[in-house]
Amino acid sequence: MTAITLFELAGAEPDRRFSPYCWRSRMALAHKGLEVEGVPWRFVEKERIAMSGQGAVPVLVDGGKVVHDSWNIAEYLEHAYPDRPSLFGGGHGRELSRFYNNWAASVLLPGLFRLIAIDIVRHLHEGDRDYFRKAREARFGQSLEAMAEGREEKVKGLRQSMQPMRATLEAQPYFGGAAPLYADYILFGAFQWARCISPFRLLEESDPVHAWRGRMLLLFGGLAGSAKGYPA
Amino acid sequence: MTAITLFELAGAEPDRRFSPYCWRSRMALAHKGLEVEGVPWRFVEKERIAMSGQGAVPVLVDGGKVVHDSWNIAEYLEHAYPDRPSLFGGGHGRELSRFYNNWAASVLLPGLFRLIAIDIVRHLHEGDRDYFRKAREARFGQSLEAMAEGREEKVKGLRQSMQPMRATLEAQPYFGGAAPLYADYILFGAFQWARCISPFRLLEESDPVHAWRGRMLLLFGGLAGSAKGYPA
Repeated sequence: MTAITLFELAGAEPDRRFSPYCWRSRMALAHKGLEVEGVPWRFVEKERIAMSGQGAVPVLVDGGKVVHDSWNIAEYLEHAYPDRPSLFGGGHGRELSRFYNNWAASVLLPGLFRLIAIDIVRHLHEGDRDYFRKAREARFGQSLEAMAEGREEKVKGLRQSMQPMRATLEAQPYFGGAAPLYADYILFGAFQWARCISPFRLLEESDPVHAWRGRMLLLFGGLAGSAKGYPA
Repeated sequence: MTAITLFELAGAEPDRRFSPYCWRSRMALAHKGLEVEGVPWRFVEKERIAMSGQGAVPVLVDGGKVVHDSWNIAEYLEHAYPDRPSLFGGGHGRELSRFYNNWAASVLLPGLFRLIAIDIVRHLHEGDRDYFRKAREARFGQSLEAMAEGREEKVKGLRQSMQPMRATLEAQPYFGGAAPLYADYILFGAFQWARCISPFRLLEESDPVHAWRGRMLLLFGGLAGSAKGYPA
């Protein structure tokens, strides 16, 4: 089997891979039992992924096939490798998982971003810092420093917004049930992003979300837990 | 077939059935193609559902079986009527649907409640009004009037919180995909609650959530759309 290539966002250190979207794809590939070569990529290297027709990672190259966007990659893997464990769990799991993707996009990721953006910029390659700061400060209408100010207090609102996760994890070990599915990887990507780039403590140890994250870090021989980052 | 009985919250008018949880069960029963006799029930009539071992509706009675709590009722129906259309869509749909239940419980229902509680009390049976007002004002730490004050402005925040719904409905007609599943009924229950009890306009007509609600109102021969309430 030709190895699959995944272009992944990296910091100044090439092995610091921290994109929440790339982690979704990494976990999805591991779920399917597929080998992958993760290639470090930086924000300004648009030409290196030009073959995908756009400028963001993850970009997956599988033989002659190029797929970008974490959701598209999950759908591609499910379709291209139907005999491997299902990412969506069968039935209408693919359709039911979309809401997770959109909840992460509108609640979890922006909430987290505000708290850890200041740590992201510190870990970026020199050539990426200006690009990142300008683009994100424009999007959020605030300096990275202002976003992080008082984050020990601000994190309480983020924890509150995680209540639907918490209540679900009180009833079952994973969002997919007894074992993780792509819905778990969607949400976990956000926490792994934070862990890889920031020492800031997001979760209280008594939180069921904390315990779930711990289980996720151990999956696939500790794939996510052994990645370069801060202690969970 | 012995008809199933469903105890449903009713207002002063016995045919004004407005509980979001009861509507979930109503839609689930229709999805399964099961006939049901909806029995009006009021908050203070705890003894009438004492056989369920608790004091809230929906309570479903199917032969000798008594089931309470909308989630439990959905699980019961799925298990007891496996040859009827699946509520969870097969695979791990049941597990994946829990997050919808918890998102509704922590975001959608409390957000909506604050805006329409004042209209609920107006429609309640005289004997229920004191109970309702005291219990809810204690829970929310505010008078019903204070909650509703400025609701034309407050509704904007609620609409913003619906963004994960909106983005999902831009990609597919129902949360279950091409056709509705229990995840749709979970969320729809909230909107039907509002429509049955309050003239307040929640959604803009251009909102994909508005269009989805319109489709939901037409399901099963207009079951929800023809129920006593205000125009959607």
